[in-house]
Amino acid sequence: MRYAYLGPQGTFTEAALNSVPEAAGAEHLPYATVPAALDALRRGEVEAAVVALENSVEGSVPTTLDELATGQPLQIVGEVHLPVSFALLVRPGTTFGDIKTVASHPHAQPQCRRWLAAHVPDAEWRAATSNAEAAQHVADGHYDAALAGSFAAARYGLSVLAEDIHDVADAVTRFVVLRRPCPPPPPTGMDRTTVVAFIGEDHPGALLEILNEFSMRGINLTLIQSRPTGQGLGSYLFWMDFEGHVADARVGEALMGLRRICADVRFVGSYTRADRIRPQIRRGTHDTDFTEAAAWLTAIRSGHS
Amino acid sequence: MRYAYLGPQGTFTEAALNSVPEAAGAEHLPYATVPAALDALRRGEVEAAVVALENSVEGSVPTTLDELATGQPLQIVGEVHLPVSFALLVRPGTTFGDIKTVASHPHAQPQCRRWLAAHVPDAEWRAATSNAEAAQHVADGHYDAALAGSFAAARYGLSVLAEDIHDVADAVTRFVVLRRPCPPPPPTGMDRTTVVAFIGEDHPGALLEILNEFSMRGINLTLIQSRPTGQGLGSYLFWMDFEGHVADARVGEALMGLRRICADVRFVGSYTRADRIRPQIRRGTHDTDFTEAAAWLTAIRSGHS
Amino acid sequence: MRYAYLGPQGTFTEAALNSVPEAAGAEHLPYATVPAALDALRRGEVEAAVVALENSVEGSVPTTLDELATGQPLQIVGEVHLPVSFALLVRPGTTFGDIKTVASHPHAQPQCRRWLAAHVPDAEWRAATSNAEAAQHVADGHYDAALAGSFAAARYGLSVLAEDIHDVADAVTRFVVLRRPCPPPPPTGMDRTTVVAFIGEDHPGALLEILNEFSMRGINLTLIQSRPTGQGLGSYLFWMDFEGHVADARVGEALMGLRRICADVRFVGSYTRADRIRPQIRRGTHDTDFTEAAAWLTAIRSGHS
Amino acid sequence: MRYAYLGPQGTFTEAALNSVPEAAGAEHLPYATVPAALDALRRGEVEAAVVALENSVEGSVPTTLDELATGQPLQIVGEVHLPVSFALLVRPGTTFGDIKTVASHPHAQPQCRRWLAAHVPDAEWRAATSNAEAAQHVADGHYDAALAGSFAAARYGLSVLAEDIHDVADAVTRFVVLRRPCPPPPPTGMDRTTVVAFIGEDHPGALLEILNEFSMRGINLTLIQSRPTGQGLGSYLFWMDFEGHVADARVGEALMGLRRICADVRFVGSYTRADRIRPQIRRGTHDTDFTEAAAWLTAIRSGHS
Repeated sequence: MRYAYLGPQGTFTEAALNSVPEAAGAEHLPYATVPAALDALRRGEVEAAVVALENSVEGSVPTTLDELATGQPLQIVGEVHLPVSFALLVRPGTTFGDIKTVASHPHAQPQCRRWLAAHVPDAEWRAATSNAEAAQHVADGHYDAALAGSFAAARYGLSVLAEDIHDVADAVTRFVVLRRPCPPPPPTGMDRTTVVAFIGEDHPGALLEILNEFSMRGINLTLIQSRPTGQGLGSYLFWMDFEGHVADARVGEALMGLRRICADVRFVGSYTRADRIRPQIRRGTHDTDFTEAAAWLTAIRSGHS
Repeated sequence: MRYAYLGPQGTFTEAALNSVPEAAGAEHLPYATVPAALDALRRGEVEAAVVALENSVEGSVPTTLDELATGQPLQIVGEVHLPVSFALLVRPGTTFGDIKTVASHPHAQPQCRRWLAAHVPDAEWRAATSNAEAAQHVADGHYDAALAGSFAAARYGLSVLAEDIHDVADAVTRFVVLRRPCPPPPPTGMDRTTVVAFIGEDHPGALLEILNEFSMRGINLTLIQSRPTGQGLGSYLFWMDFEGHVADARVGEALMGLRRICADVRFVGSYTRADRIRPQIRRGTHDTDFTEAAAWLTAIRSGHS
Repeated sequence: MRYAYLGPQGTFTEAALNSVPEAAGAEHLPYATVPAALDALRRGEVEAAVVALENSVEGSVPTTLDELATGQPLQIVGEVHLPVSFALLVRPGTTFGDIKTVASHPHAQPQCRRWLAAHVPDAEWRAATSNAEAAQHVADGHYDAALAGSFAAARYGLSVLAEDIHDVADAVTRFVVLRRPCPPPPPTGMDRTTVVAFIGEDHPGALLEILNEFSMRGINLTLIQSRPTGQGLGSYLFWMDFEGHVADARVGEALMGLRRICADVRFVGSYTRADRIRPQIRRGTHDTDFTEAAAWLTAIRSGHS
Repeated sequence: MRYAYLGPQGTFTEAALNSVPEAAGAEHLPYATVPAALDALRRGEVEAAVVALENSVEGSVPTTLDELATGQPLQIVGEVHLPVSFALLVRPGTTFGDIKTVASHPHAQPQCRRWLAAHVPDAEWRAATSNAEAAQHVADGHYDAALAGSFAAARYGLSVLAEDIHDVADAVTRFVVLRRPCPPPPPTGMDRTTVVAFIGEDHPGALLEILNEFSMRGINLTLIQSRPTGQGLGSYLFWMDFEGHVADARVGEALMGLRRICADVRFVGSYTRADRIRPQIRRGTHDTDFTEAAAWLTAIRSGHS
């Protein structure tokens, strides 16, 4: 069993992968970009991949959303929530006064902006493809400091000059575990489902209709994110995460509704929530309510009510 | 084959029954009241019954609605629309100047109020159980004139003093053909369906939810009528007629939705519309759209999308 | 001060009028029909009128609804709830065994059907214009018994053979006090408002839009009743009673919404509820919420936010 | 008059600023980041600023959205749509075979990915803070090629090796012109309005209610974008662009509705659309419809209807 992840070694994604029980003992293969990791999964070089999907401060990761929404289909089979906490990594001996440049992934900089302004006000920020790459650049002497996970220090022979850096307390990044299309993992009652809805341009009220399909069945959305389809300003797709499992009757009927409303719908997966929250199920929307209503319909259609 | 109808002979209901092709050659049995006709059907004295349901001027017939909504279940299998046109029936020799009293069913009086005020301004109106009974009372000498169908004149030995009486042009009464619960007649694409929804008292927004179930599937209501349940002011049931047949996928799913929302739902029938209007079916709500969506759901649930 | 009511003396409407505090000491004038009473008010023969609007068993009174919806405008300024309890009135000396005919207003008969079947199974029912008129007919010897209020016995020299007759316990009739158009009585926090909405035929989804105007502002409907407009089957107006007063901000904005949706809207009145129920006001819909939002809008429009 | 823009010289933002008629003859001041440009405006160093808001391929610019949604308030007073077309800039004499590294802003890379794979398959991509900075790095000899606007070539002494590079035809970037809070520019009938809605965590159905406020008044959204509030996964704000001007009655009433539903609403501006599209106004939602309805409400409240 092989898992792809956004490398190099020492990224938060690697830390997330290390917390996946199923991945213990598996081979962990770093890839330079999210698309590269996902393409490796598509080509069969690996059996699974772990990538970041959204962050409670920086928002969703556009590349991940776009790859899963419009690339060759893959399926989310699990998720991991990882608290965000940066360390400032330097070459041994570097002091705060020595730091002229700080490198990081562009997502890390806004999460530490105030800390940087307070502690290294004169340093310039430099973009890197990943925080681990930033650490590598520090080790190589290109930059003076890197924002990265403290676990990256050992890997690159760096020192931790400061730890637990973040402007916002309790920031969390959500990662997803992906596989090639497959039967979803069984429902646990603590499930989340992800779909992507493509709305035709000639259907301006479609978003309201979509939300109505969820609302009338008591299904709460946990994320809704619009992304351009690339067909011009004003043409969007909607990434939606919501409570429940595709095997639930209320979810199934809502998804069929979306299918009939939208130009296209892509099912991206049903999986156990990392926060293990069990949703409130509104009266009239339990599986048994659907089963009873279907039996009643059969009876009245056949004249045996 | 025996048909019950609201008698006595000479009522509009008998005229409606005479226009039902299936009833030609059958036995036609008059009953004194709507409940009596329906009880005869329930007991098996007859195989079918014809009663008035609504009138384009006077509105729905409460007794019919209440009997079908809350009495032992019966099913609508067809409908008849009959233009309303009253005649003023008198004993031979009576002139306008002789008329001191005009009798009719209470439904007839408001439809002819202006005509009566113009032509017999001094006559007093008297209530009768049916227009035919009013004609009988005129024949008996109790009253001077009756508002009834002109076809009732011969039956009671009366003369037609005036014809084509109505305050509103093009008034129509809608009658329904009833049977004991049975498989609905097959869909024709010009169908109407009737249900009765009982809303629990603890669910004030339920009517909006019910209308939403229809609206989101492009189903137009042709009649919505609230009636008290007898449980106190503010407790209502809703009689709803709408476009489509219970065999249609969009109707079936909407009805299952009602079943899950409401305290109770009674299916009263699917039948061919007398006006033979073919509804517009909104995109995404054809049977094929539902079939395709169900196949897609099956595929994603099993991992074979 | 003069009040019109549906007479003759001894009707439930007179009993309702007797319970109106403002009418104590005023002149009470009986009229033969609801339209006659209302026309007297319109012509200025009286300053107010009391008529029945709905009954918890028999439903709304079509004549009252139609007169207020489409006749020359009048305004509801108050309401009375009267428990329904019939008495069986007979000429002194009459016993159950003597009764061949029982007369009443057509509304009374269905409310006592089971009682009649149990106690005078062989008696035939006869329609009268009012229960008091039925009592008069008994006094005159036309019929053997009348269903009416026990208070009518003395007035017509009859005896009460049975009291407290009703098939359904706790039945209530709701009467309204009407005046010519005038400023509504001030809000009490326990108010009801009545409007009539005329939906254009080319606007099938209008009812859902109307309910939405109420629902989104947390306004509960207490009665919704469709009536034909007389323009053909399928053309309806909607009588709607709902919580709140036209002076309330949430009610005012909802009514303006109706006005923009509908072909026409008639305001029929705001008045204190007889049941003195104080509605729950949903967050964001208090008058202060509307005032604050309007001030905010003014500020952003002028650039002073 | 001074305009801040995302520099350095040679960025697409500078090209957008050059197309703003009001900015002709004004002083144009480059800033290193979007927050820096906006802070300059807030501090009064400049009177206006131009920044990118969204791109038809890459989506919205999170930094701009977050700054305008949660930073010290600024107001959009205009917009510019600029076609996206990249050039590959190199030091004079460089050929395709020489290119080992290509630098650009992270937004540019995904828009040219397929072109890069086809034309410089072996080159590695490098992140830069802006495309102009990437050009500067090429001029300095750090990297071999830069993706940037062709107008940047002259500024940095580079050659255009290829032009009109983009994976998706007709890609457009939308820029906004910002000022400190001020009265909105007057309506033109071709207006767009931007607001940010903060939904309280205890109000899961609020998004549907918000869309309903727009839908029921016939207002189409042109962009809806969720962003985390930083308060944890699942806590979002919604950036919404929609047709119409805050001075329009239908927009004003919808905004008051949002204000009452949401924990907070920020008005970000009303301004003329760059695409000069004139929206269809649904019947019942013109300013005159609101004026008429308000006059009617005043009349019925005062008893003068």
